Amino acid sequence: MNVPHLISLADLSAGQITELLDCAQRLRPHALSGSSERGVLQGKSVCTLFFEPSTRTRSSFQLAAMRLGADILGFDASHSSGSKGETAVDTMRNLEAMGVDAFVVRTSIDGQLRDLIDAAHDSTRFINAGDGRSNHPTQGLLDMLTIRQHKGRDFSQLKITLVGDILHSRVARSDLHALKTLGCGEIRVCGPQALLPDDATLDGCLRIADFDEAIADTDVVMMLRLQRERMQEGLVSSLQQYHEQYGLDSRRLALAKPDAIVMHPGPMNRGVEITDEVADGPQSVIMAQVSNGVAVRMAVLKTIFGA
Amino acid sequence: MNVPHLISLADLSAGQITELLDCAQRLRPHALSGSSERGVLQGKSVCTLFFEPSTRTRSSFQLAAMRLGADILGFDASHSSGSKGETAVDTMRNLEAMGVDAFVVRTSIDGQLRDLIDAAHDSTRFINAGDGRSNHPTQGLLDMLTIRQHKGRDFSQLKITLVGDILHSRVARSDLHALKTLGCGEIRVCGPQALLPDDATLDGCLRIADFDEAIADTDVVMMLRLQRERMQEGLVSSLQQYHEQYGLDSRRLALAKPDAIVMHPGPMNRGVEITDEVADGPQSVIMAQVSNGVAVRMAVLKTIFGA
Amino acid sequence: MNVPHLISLADLSAGQITELLDCAQRLRPHALSGSSERGVLQGKSVCTLFFEPSTRTRSSFQLAAMRLGADILGFDASHSSGSKGETAVDTMRNLEAMGVDAFVVRTSIDGQLRDLIDAAHDSTRFINAGDGRSNHPTQGLLDMLTIRQHKGRDFSQLKITLVGDILHSRVARSDLHALKTLGCGEIRVCGPQALLPDDATLDGCLRIADFDEAIADTDVVMMLRLQRERMQEGLVSSLQQYHEQYGLDSRRLALAKPDAIVMHPGPMNRGVEITDEVADGPQSVIMAQVSNGVAVRMAVLKTIFGA
Repeated sequence: MNVPHLISLADLSAGQITELLDCAQRLRPHALSGSSERGVLQGKSVCTLFFEPSTRTRSSFQLAAMRLGADILGFDASHSSGSKGETAVDTMRNLEAMGVDAFVVRTSIDGQLRDLIDAAHDSTRFINAGDGRSNHPTQGLLDMLTIRQHKGRDFSQLKITLVGDILHSRVARSDLHALKTLGCGEIRVCGPQALLPDDATLDGCLRIADFDEAIADTDVVMMLRLQRERMQEGLVSSLQQYHEQYGLDSRRLALAKPDAIVMHPGPMNRGVEITDEVADGPQSVIMAQVSNGVAVRMAVLKTIFGA
Repeated sequence: MNVPHLISLADLSAGQITELLDCAQRLRPHALSGSSERGVLQGKSVCTLFFEPSTRTRSSFQLAAMRLGADILGFDASHSSGSKGETAVDTMRNLEAMGVDAFVVRTSIDGQLRDLIDAAHDSTRFINAGDGRSNHPTQGLLDMLTIRQHKGRDFSQLKITLVGDILHSRVARSDLHALKTLGCGEIRVCGPQALLPDDATLDGCLRIADFDEAIADTDVVMMLRLQRERMQEGLVSSLQQYHEQYGLDSRRLALAKPDAIVMHPGPMNRGVEITDEVADGPQSVIMAQVSNGVAVRMAVLKTIFGA
Repeated sequence: MNVPHLISLADLSAGQITELLDCAQRLRPHALSGSSERGVLQGKSVCTLFFEPSTRTRSSFQLAAMRLGADILGFDASHSSGSKGETAVDTMRNLEAMGVDAFVVRTSIDGQLRDLIDAAHDSTRFINAGDGRSNHPTQGLLDMLTIRQHKGRDFSQLKITLVGDILHSRVARSDLHALKTLGCGEIRVCGPQALLPDDATLDGCLRIADFDEAIADTDVVMMLRLQRERMQEGLVSSLQQYHEQYGLDSRRLALAKPDAIVMHPGPMNRGVEITDEVADGPQSVIMAQVSNGVAVRMAVLKTIFGA
């Protein structure tokens, strides 16, 4: 499979997504420990170039690269001492000139990755670890892998409900790209009017205002994190009210299919978008998502290097 | 020896402490360099999960894990971008789900480690790298190893003097656990009244108000670090006065046994609790403590993994 | 070659500099990837001890040490939680006691490295990664390597022009040491009067006030970074005016020899000391400097260890 960079799941065909998921599934037993894959990226240098802090995602990529035997360089460009007023392109080109073979990039600027790729050598590889509100493709892939493990490979019969702040969520956008490409039967979205995008993002989705109605008979409930700054921005009136309207608790979960799974990209605001009972309950697959994240990132690293 | 976690030296028998020290002593030649132990923890992932900053202790654990061949993940949860409002348990469980096999935890909250262990899988291992004022067990072990190297294995004939802020010191608490368990002959404590605990911590110890008296004829002088915030809290009137009453200088050291050793857990406030002359003098074993720290941490890592 | 530490290029003979450059040149093919040199420093611990932040230089040393198979410990002493009020010597001695074999030190204090070396064991190795305004010897070496690759090994026929804030630049001082030692034919310096040193630094150099005149017929143009704090200090009136008088653009570059090369130690202030057109143009060797930096640092690490 010729995928030199992973920028957006919108760039991938159903076949390519499936192939990546199959690779991740094969790596799954090795993902969480194992020294059997150490030779795969030996001698390769992978740099986590983060213009925005994210310890969790960085750690997941770091472990994935480590378990494939790569050299890891962590470059934190999120504060000024990292960048010293230099442009992002110059920072990347400097590291490339030091022999970095692949960059894992997190940035708050939508589409910045494209500028970096354009400025880099053809042989340098890039993985998007989250850009602005646009894409978080490895999160999208790990979500699909988690769904597939619990609901099978045929997405056409599935009803999936996404709940919360879709407007500001790169996770939601990547999930929507993947779900549409994989032919998901029904995608329902539910959230405060002010936190739902007006553009083509939700084309093909059912907008259902009432959460009780949106969750009815669904197979998968994907909860999104509520950033607390939405309160200051006046987009959400109070955590209490948000929880009442859009929080997932046991009563609501009982409206979904009996074997419905509950997902959350983390970090969770317990008591806001999700209760402890549900987050830690038998239908939660939230920790499986995290574990699948390492396998998916190993698969993506192998794929971009053609290894 | 079945010690899956190291939480407090109070949990260990004299036999277990001795076994850990023997293991550290055997590793001592390999601890400071050496590639001979690289295979021991190969394929294991060790995470330093620090909710409170401590570069020194983290570095010591990192080198210990590295020299045993483990993969190391540093997770700094001491500032908000690390935790994003997530609970400590959720942060730990996320990293566990990524395949971390053992956590080295530093936290300002007494007993927090127990919550983490309760929430973790049975197979996940924990080492306390300092919690609140309660425990710093690897420091206690490295102190015992240092004493044993200079004074022999029989603690029953030893007089040991602990000086300074015992109230706020997890180091002192761990040393006291170990000294009592190993049957130390006489434990003397000396410090400002406001910095000595009222509870059972000092049971079995001699409280001696005057430092000249407390140090007389002692085998080991353990100085503690004076945190400068004790001044702001009004617990100590001035650095100058503290130094006069509780600072170790050459005159005072001459009151101890001629072959007495001087210890300090670092970092030192030179000129406050200890003078340069003593810190760098022939009776100081402070650097030996640091070196022993790596050996002790290697021994603890091997032991918790049963490796 | 017996070079246990690299403190200043002023300490090295022409023969020693040449030998280091030859070693770097041989390592150049392996410097940017390669696993062929992994065994060279196996079992050695190298610590980047930075009292001043510098992500770029630290990354270059880290990759160099990694590619030689050393264990790397990053110790950031640039903020208080790193040092906790401890002296630099105590911090170094602690890490040395943990088994660090070599320190790569960055500090804002001129000559501080000498204090560290004096306090260390004889067997501990030191590399200066920049101290105050005095020295940045690996930058000097990588600049010489870059010149040699483009202009040959005989420096006696070369005209080299250094432009900008020489007063505050450790890069300029190291370049000047090396250029003089290697017998550079003509060294011209050009910059605002307030940013040129009055002492012996510029002995043997031609001071030329006008940039157009200073660049005429030169083989190498070395631009220096303008720190923005020079404005606040009143040493430079405005970025605009600085650019007009001392900025390198295509018009000025056309005054140099047709095959002149353009160098910059980075990070660049584009539009201030250098235009995009020149920085990214065919005569720029700025990225080659960065790549050579890894090779030079590998050569220095090998040399100090006698490996």
